[in-house]
Amino acid sequence: MSSTYGEHLKLSIFGQSHGPSIGMVLDGIPAGLKVDMLQLQQFMDRRAPGQGEYATARKEADAPEFISGVVDGYTCGAPIAAIIHNKNTRSSDYDNLKSCPRPGHADYAAQIKYNGFQDCAGGGHFSGRLTAPLCIAGGLCKQWLAQQGIDIAAHIVSIGGIADDPVYLDWIKPDFSIIQKDFPVINPQAGQLMRQKIAQAKADGDSVGGLIECIATGVPAGLGGPLFGGMEGKLAHILYGIPAVKGVDFGSGFTGSYLLGSENNDQYAIEDGKIVTLTNNSGGILGGITTGMPLVMQIAVKPTPSIAKQQQSVNLNTMTVQPLCVQGRHDPCIVPRAVPVVEAAVAIALYDTMLGKI
Amino acid sequence: MSSTYGEHLKLSIFGQSHGPSIGMVLDGIPAGLKVDMLQLQQFMDRRAPGQGEYATARKEADAPEFISGVVDGYTCGAPIAAIIHNKNTRSSDYDNLKSCPRPGHADYAAQIKYNGFQDCAGGGHFSGRLTAPLCIAGGLCKQWLAQQGIDIAAHIVSIGGIADDPVYLDWIKPDFSIIQKDFPVINPQAGQLMRQKIAQAKADGDSVGGLIECIATGVPAGLGGPLFGGMEGKLAHILYGIPAVKGVDFGSGFTGSYLLGSENNDQYAIEDGKIVTLTNNSGGILGGITTGMPLVMQIAVKPTPSIAKQQQSVNLNTMTVQPLCVQGRHDPCIVPRAVPVVEAAVAIALYDTMLGKI
Amino acid sequence: MSSTYGEHLKLSIFGQSHGPSIGMVLDGIPAGLKVDMLQLQQFMDRRAPGQGEYATARKEADAPEFISGVVDGYTCGAPIAAIIHNKNTRSSDYDNLKSCPRPGHADYAAQIKYNGFQDCAGGGHFSGRLTAPLCIAGGLCKQWLAQQGIDIAAHIVSIGGIADDPVYLDWIKPDFSIIQKDFPVINPQAGQLMRQKIAQAKADGDSVGGLIECIATGVPAGLGGPLFGGMEGKLAHILYGIPAVKGVDFGSGFTGSYLLGSENNDQYAIEDGKIVTLTNNSGGILGGITTGMPLVMQIAVKPTPSIAKQQQSVNLNTMTVQPLCVQGRHDPCIVPRAVPVVEAAVAIALYDTMLGKI
Amino acid sequence: MSSTYGEHLKLSIFGQSHGPSIGMVLDGIPAGLKVDMLQLQQFMDRRAPGQGEYATARKEADAPEFISGVVDGYTCGAPIAAIIHNKNTRSSDYDNLKSCPRPGHADYAAQIKYNGFQDCAGGGHFSGRLTAPLCIAGGLCKQWLAQQGIDIAAHIVSIGGIADDPVYLDWIKPDFSIIQKDFPVINPQAGQLMRQKIAQAKADGDSVGGLIECIATGVPAGLGGPLFGGMEGKLAHILYGIPAVKGVDFGSGFTGSYLLGSENNDQYAIEDGKIVTLTNNSGGILGGITTGMPLVMQIAVKPTPSIAKQQQSVNLNTMTVQPLCVQGRHDPCIVPRAVPVVEAAVAIALYDTMLGKI
Repeated sequence: MSSTYGEHLKLSIFGQSHGPSIGMVLDGIPAGLKVDMLQLQQFMDRRAPGQGEYATARKEADAPEFISGVVDGYTCGAPIAAIIHNKNTRSSDYDNLKSCPRPGHADYAAQIKYNGFQDCAGGGHFSGRLTAPLCIAGGLCKQWLAQQGIDIAAHIVSIGGIADDPVYLDWIKPDFSIIQKDFPVINPQAGQLMRQKIAQAKADGDSVGGLIECIATGVPAGLGGPLFGGMEGKLAHILYGIPAVKGVDFGSGFTGSYLLGSENNDQYAIEDGKIVTLTNNSGGILGGITTGMPLVMQIAVKPTPSIAKQQQSVNLNTMTVQPLCVQGRHDPCIVPRAVPVVEAAVAIALYDTMLGKI
Repeated sequence: MSSTYGEHLKLSIFGQSHGPSIGMVLDGIPAGLKVDMLQLQQFMDRRAPGQGEYATARKEADAPEFISGVVDGYTCGAPIAAIIHNKNTRSSDYDNLKSCPRPGHADYAAQIKYNGFQDCAGGGHFSGRLTAPLCIAGGLCKQWLAQQGIDIAAHIVSIGGIADDPVYLDWIKPDFSIIQKDFPVINPQAGQLMRQKIAQAKADGDSVGGLIECIATGVPAGLGGPLFGGMEGKLAHILYGIPAVKGVDFGSGFTGSYLLGSENNDQYAIEDGKIVTLTNNSGGILGGITTGMPLVMQIAVKPTPSIAKQQQSVNLNTMTVQPLCVQGRHDPCIVPRAVPVVEAAVAIALYDTMLGKI
Repeated sequence: MSSTYGEHLKLSIFGQSHGPSIGMVLDGIPAGLKVDMLQLQQFMDRRAPGQGEYATARKEADAPEFISGVVDGYTCGAPIAAIIHNKNTRSSDYDNLKSCPRPGHADYAAQIKYNGFQDCAGGGHFSGRLTAPLCIAGGLCKQWLAQQGIDIAAHIVSIGGIADDPVYLDWIKPDFSIIQKDFPVINPQAGQLMRQKIAQAKADGDSVGGLIECIATGVPAGLGGPLFGGMEGKLAHILYGIPAVKGVDFGSGFTGSYLLGSENNDQYAIEDGKIVTLTNNSGGILGGITTGMPLVMQIAVKPTPSIAKQQQSVNLNTMTVQPLCVQGRHDPCIVPRAVPVVEAAVAIALYDTMLGKI
Repeated sequence: MSSTYGEHLKLSIFGQSHGPSIGMVLDGIPAGLKVDMLQLQQFMDRRAPGQGEYATARKEADAPEFISGVVDGYTCGAPIAAIIHNKNTRSSDYDNLKSCPRPGHADYAAQIKYNGFQDCAGGGHFSGRLTAPLCIAGGLCKQWLAQQGIDIAAHIVSIGGIADDPVYLDWIKPDFSIIQKDFPVINPQAGQLMRQKIAQAKADGDSVGGLIECIATGVPAGLGGPLFGGMEGKLAHILYGIPAVKGVDFGSGFTGSYLLGSENNDQYAIEDGKIVTLTNNSGGILGGITTGMPLVMQIAVKPTPSIAKQQQSVNLNTMTVQPLCVQGRHDPCIVPRAVPVVEAAVAIALYDTMLGKI
């Protein structure tokens, strides 16, 4: 519950946006797994702030310091713990939020749950900054999955309603190379329009959301299980742990609900002596169990709630309505930075599942 | 994992479609809660097979027999266990499925996971019939939540692409009375069209899916938490435990990803001395924590995979493609019967959360 | 948590002593494991009531009826569920216990926890009868462990202070054949004295407790882990789930605390090319991890609290002291019947650990 | 599993003896609890090394640095994380242990489990040093329990077979003041003899173990539950997480197994309008549930396995026997330093239980 996850591994994420450090503990990992710190840092950098005009002005190196569990480049069986020091904090930006909650943010709900004791500075434990330790854990799991032939890649499907090419990444034999860029879309022109949309929102003191698709290849058939052990539930659980995610579906998902059974069913075929399906509307999961086809899921990210535009809030002390313009450094769109975070979440869930494979 | 769920309560569901009985154990429930068996049976009846032209021809009374945990109409603190005897089984319908998996069904994935030892008859543990014990647990939780002023109702949003009235149930002050009918839609004409769509699919040996919306009112603010303790993740986890669910979103969800922050944010107001929001695009959840507004979620149900129409499958013994027409008694659309199941799942997740309220 | 156990498997036990049935669900078990029902029944019979002069007069067949998870003699991957029907109940024996708690029994503690709603009849969910479903689960796990070369046997060390031969079963290379009898002691004369002690206690309206030792052989080195993942903690947790167990130690245990390090340390040697220890004071566990030597643990069972002798209790309604003579059918000593229950508990914990082996 | 604990709170302990830092994360704690850092440091100091002639020569300040979860002296609802920097490490002492395991230590078992990748320096994650983060978590829980009137104190019962006064601390109305000293025994002369025993063992290059008793007062009746939810199992699980603990019993425990039911049962009485028992052989727990009487448990601590005396080990590379004299700085007796660790473990288990009180 709360900030821990996992059945076979145990992930615990801690820290507040403007506290001394943030970090994670990842327990239950076998000893002897290779850890490539350079590759991890490159993965962390994809999420790091300060990536350009569409990102927050806050700069952080996001360099994890490992304090447990890795010796001479290999896991040693002890829990893996790593922290990231917070350097660039400006807590005074948040002084007035305790009495006046930001619309679309956790402020009011947190005020009730924590009875006023929550750390408001920078969003505290609710900050998107907590996705950095998630990326440490996920970056490691991604490496270990890759060592087993399982690859995970996410890309932007749409931002602010502007969509990438209508036929997205192929769900049968995806080619990850076409999305592996700074701004992971297939059609560069669509990418350019998305960037303009973000810039416009920023200029307007507003924000935009978007859709991300994540695909995992090389996943063996037979993972997961019926009912509450299903892969969809397991993946959705962790994906909803990413701040701002408000929708998750698999394969044809919501669209599939409009189809006929004869259209949505994936018929079987044989290819190179292996069972495959001709389509992949199931997103690689049937009965909660992986089919051996690529896993496919879509994630809906809401527009960043922190906007400069005036909104109506209430003053919790005086119980009167009060206009609010949110100050501070905020991403007008978090979708591009959420792409590696989605990969991290999927990697953690898949690696956890692989650990429990029987 | 697998067929158990819960943090504070522990739900365990067991049985196979054509085994002697199916059932559930619900542990961790406080003693002294009133159990209304008549009300529970009425709830069970909403899910039961044999409800009319759009349902399976299989008839089952679905009358739970309680064997533990309830004494004189009150919970006694011991785990609550109930079973339903299976009476009406025709296993011979399924004889050929072990070698020839049905497209869209768990057959092939199960074959790999269970190495051929799975019970194929009637779908075994993957059968929609296992939602009956889920409804026992959920029906009980629903009663106990109602005793605390929390009400849950689900309704059909669309079937086979035919939608109910475009403005669905109000997310601010929902009026459940307008959907509480056998076929829970707002507009009876839309309901009629949906029924025709189902009848047509049946006549064509095909099937249709649909969308369900579930709303919970009276949920106190402050439940849930950030990251993996969020209500969205918790609800999605159990909702994906319902067979055929392939998409879940909350509030404006996928649609919200196209909006501007200024459109999607729910501005605050004061009503009768209470903090409310003017819209409810968050679906009553911010930062993973309930806001006190109604919880709102949409669930995408895929078309029933068992169709009479010929499809391509493979023979796992000979490893050759093979045409398949699925025989047996199947619902051409499970959406109407899934409505109470969705309510049950939401009730279980919410009651579990209420038990852990601190 | 309450009546569920396990990290990798999930065991849920339900039922009350005088309810319609008791039973268990065992989830997370791989498909394709052979189940020998005859062997299971023989194991159940070792625990069953009515075994002679030292046991309760209550007779129950204790024949489990499997309703889920086993098809044609093999596990099918669905949760395994089995129930035992209660036939021989005499609830009127317990009418006065709600107001007047039996010393040494759970009555008063349960009254507080369950606020008076607990089922008192026959001890309800606290009854030793609930060890029957524990034996179903444990009997199955014992079979599956034996298929992997892991054998478990428990025996009586002492009853009412009368000890078996001072050097009990050898901890290096135990010979289980010397204890595999109805009354599992090494020295038949000691066994005879124990039986007399029990008969005397019964005649006096009193009861006796005793010590049980359990040994598991063939356990591979490397199971368990440091801190909370240690095998001692895992085994103790489930052993304390057996009613009346009040002490658990491992290897030299309490006695070892009096020794010098040079006496208690197990020195290493090589035998047949394998690392062994010359003694086994560690009970086969170091740093929480199995060493490959036999697991050895002792379990202290308190004297049965239900005695006919007059004791002082209180009337909870009038809040006055009140003499009490416990009526009903009770074992004057549960130690002999607890022996297979201890084996069952150890089997469940070990099988759970084997499932999580990485 | 492994280094995480808890049902309602989630404790995760990380670090290796000679790594950069050790620490803990404690999640699931309500916001608004007062944290007294001075009191915590005083508690930590009771465990810290360098306390005199009977302790290791290694000196560490053991000053926890909080990096998450505490703001202005109160919990803020975010996970509480704290680290302790390791300063005084001498890893070269341990160079030869990888090939030649120390008798009585985890070395060999860890070698198998972690396949040679474990961190041997200073015992790595198996080191008694990891009880420092346990004391951070336990010290906090102890404060929060004290705020609810629950007090916990442990004391030395015997060391190396030398016992404190035969009637230990009273189990009905314990007076903690008589044991609250540096060397917590009742009879100072017994304490002096114990110290001499330790000094002698040290001089001989040997070590001694001992017994600790822990008592918790003010615990409300009704905590815990039957079967696997019992307080004994829950407490034993965490107590066995303390390195070197090999036995745990409750109340009369092992001794009680020699008594008659009429001797061991705690008869009821009324005192100041409250139900009490005349004795407390149950250790305050019946049917797994607290009775309202003090909780009483005994913990057997084995003699420190690291001794300078020559022992027989094996060389894992050459597979030949090899004499071993363990070098390095080791406590000849860890019992005195284990006393606050036992209190910490009990506090964590009790606070976890209080969080789940329903």
